[in-house]
Amino acid sequence: VRYASTRTVTLIPGDGIGPEISAAVQKIFSAAQVPINWEPVDVTPVKGPDGRFGIPQAAIDSVNKHEIGLKGPLMTPIGKGHRSLNLALRKEFNLYANVRPCKSLDGYETLYKDVDVVTIRENTEGEYSGIEHEIVPGVVQSIKLITEDASMRVADFAFSYAKANGRSKVTVVHKANIMRMSDGLFLRCCREASKKFPEIKMEEKYLDTVCLTMVQDPSQYDVLVMPNLYGDILSDLCAGLVGGLGLTPSGNIGLNGAIFESVHGTAPDIAGQDKANPTALLLSAVMMLRYMELGTYANKIEKACFEVIKEGNKLTGDLGGKGKCSEFTDEICRKVESS
Amino acid sequence: VRYASTRTVTLIPGDGIGPEISAAVQKIFSAAQVPINWEPVDVTPVKGPDGRFGIPQAAIDSVNKHEIGLKGPLMTPIGKGHRSLNLALRKEFNLYANVRPCKSLDGYETLYKDVDVVTIRENTEGEYSGIEHEIVPGVVQSIKLITEDASMRVADFAFSYAKANGRSKVTVVHKANIMRMSDGLFLRCCREASKKFPEIKMEEKYLDTVCLTMVQDPSQYDVLVMPNLYGDILSDLCAGLVGGLGLTPSGNIGLNGAIFESVHGTAPDIAGQDKANPTALLLSAVMMLRYMELGTYANKIEKACFEVIKEGNKLTGDLGGKGKCSEFTDEICRKVESS
Ligand SMILES: CC(C)[C@H](C(=O)O)[C@@H](O)C(=O)O
Ligand SMILES: CC(C)[C@H](C(=O)O)[C@@H](O)C(=O)O
Repeated sequence: VRYASTRTVTLIPGDGIGPEISAAVQKIFSAAQVPINWEPVDVTPVKGPDGRFGIPQAAIDSVNKHEIGLKGPLMTPIGKGHRSLNLALRKEFNLYANVRPCKSLDGYETLYKDVDVVTIRENTEGEYSGIEHEIVPGVVQSIKLITEDASMRVADFAFSYAKANGRSKVTVVHKANIMRMSDGLFLRCCREASKKFPEIKMEEKYLDTVCLTMVQDPSQYDVLVMPNLYGDILSDLCAGLVGGLGLTPSGNIGLNGAIFESVHGTAPDIAGQDKANPTALLLSAVMMLRYMELGTYANKIEKACFEVIKEGNKLTGDLGGKGKCSEFTDEICRKVESS
Repeated sequence: VRYASTRTVTLIPGDGIGPEISAAVQKIFSAAQVPINWEPVDVTPVKGPDGRFGIPQAAIDSVNKHEIGLKGPLMTPIGKGHRSLNLALRKEFNLYANVRPCKSLDGYETLYKDVDVVTIRENTEGEYSGIEHEIVPGVVQSIKLITEDASMRVADFAFSYAKANGRSKVTVVHKANIMRMSDGLFLRCCREASKKFPEIKMEEKYLDTVCLTMVQDPSQYDVLVMPNLYGDILSDLCAGLVGGLGLTPSGNIGLNGAIFESVHGTAPDIAGQDKANPTALLLSAVMMLRYMELGTYANKIEKACFEVIKEGNKLTGDLGGKGKCSEFTDEICRKVESS
């Protein structure tokens, strides 16, 4: 624990179902007596002195000060100069590694029983560079940007993560047979990083092969590291294997801070109706606690959440149940209080 | 049928297991008395007068003359100036649409029962442009190229294909939320093409969402059309759902010809041992027959192949059986002869 006293976490409740699932997490954290304070901020872009829309300064200051945030789903306001507010935040705070664990949940059945993979996605460049041109009418180029710095950084992160979490293998996912220079650079950085971790096995695989074999036998994979777009795809594929984005957590790790977020949508159709499933945000908050070295609280909350899912009688509609968000939440609170 | 007389098909047997699975297809075609002649060619790159390696002129002439080819797996010879010989062929003959049907096979069980999707992949540009630069040391860009011409062409193809094959929906797969200009152009072309086919439903989905939902419920998809790299990924994912690349056919369609190919590897470890599974190449040859309007032969051969798989006692090692390539092939021959 870096600070003995109570730490503050920036909370970005988000849009749609964001506020209710954020409130659910806060309630469960209180029940577990987690020693943190929340500082809620609004990130809706505002017009700055230069006439351009940007994330409000107060929100930026809060994350920079506390170096840790929890974030619900965000809508991207149309015509405010942002591709995606989710991406703008990753960029603003230079959150270079996106970590998405996908693990089969006991009690929530899918076609797969033994999924336990973690995708680690380069989070700042690649196809997400935002650089595009129309060369002549009808001819467009988009730039995929790969740098040694960003690749080394995420490669090192992936191997350190594997080591710290008792994992044994890192699969580097690439298309260096096609993008020889860009994915080739990424691959070389991973090879370089792997040398520092002789205890972690490294393997190299084409993205297409990983997709094919992942749906056939996910148990052959462990930690996977890859450029930005491939991570977007593969993390969703893996989430699909275990029940979808409503059940899978995510963390964006940077040099000076980290933001944990649920990556599902804002679900405006059910917003405010006490029907939302807070699991993805809660498990993201659990990841956050581990990152903050508050693992005892993390374990207690995670265990309670998994138990309630396994018992099955409070499941929300997306999981095929009839439970309300509040009922599901209260059941988890009861468990953490009595543990 | 465009010609009343017997037509000639260029045969590229390929490397590794290529020759034996090609021979299997030829044997089955003879048994079914398919009215075609084979013209085998070698595509191993040779040094031209300018000192550069290229596909031999005789092979190029053969495909250009007959306008139709069947191709086994190819190894890419190292250091002969080709990224991939498979890609070089697609490029040489301007084969702009790559069609890969994936259908659950009765008798070969996987986790999925009801897969019946066709991915249609733009086959000439996108991330496969081959344009890459190192801007400064450690900073590389790869160009994703999207043109209106290539996008319109493949979009039109996808809708025509859907119509001709009694399909009801085309899903356009994109990341226009990230690559607004390039994928945006592709998407607009698909919208344009769809107007000419009011009887075919069109839907637009993000690639990550398609991956997630494909592994949860493939039955919601029908025909899908997408830029090059997304097709590479999604076609392999779909192949994984039904048993892998050993069972799925593929066709590369161009303006002046088409090449049908199995997209699995050359399997050098089992080459020449009568262990290879000829199914993917055979089903590719069946697609070819339908393309040539020789549907009666196609149906007869396909039926026999499916029956032999369903009976299960001649399956090759990759499918969990003990049959030899020749036994599997002969069993199919017996069925087509007696039908
Ligand atoms: C919302 C969207 C821009 C984002 C992405 O493409 O990265 C999402 O799919 C994700 O994975 O977080
Ligand atoms: C062999 C390789 C270059 C090729 C590709 O990436 O297109 C293959 O994966 C395919 O799908 O045909």
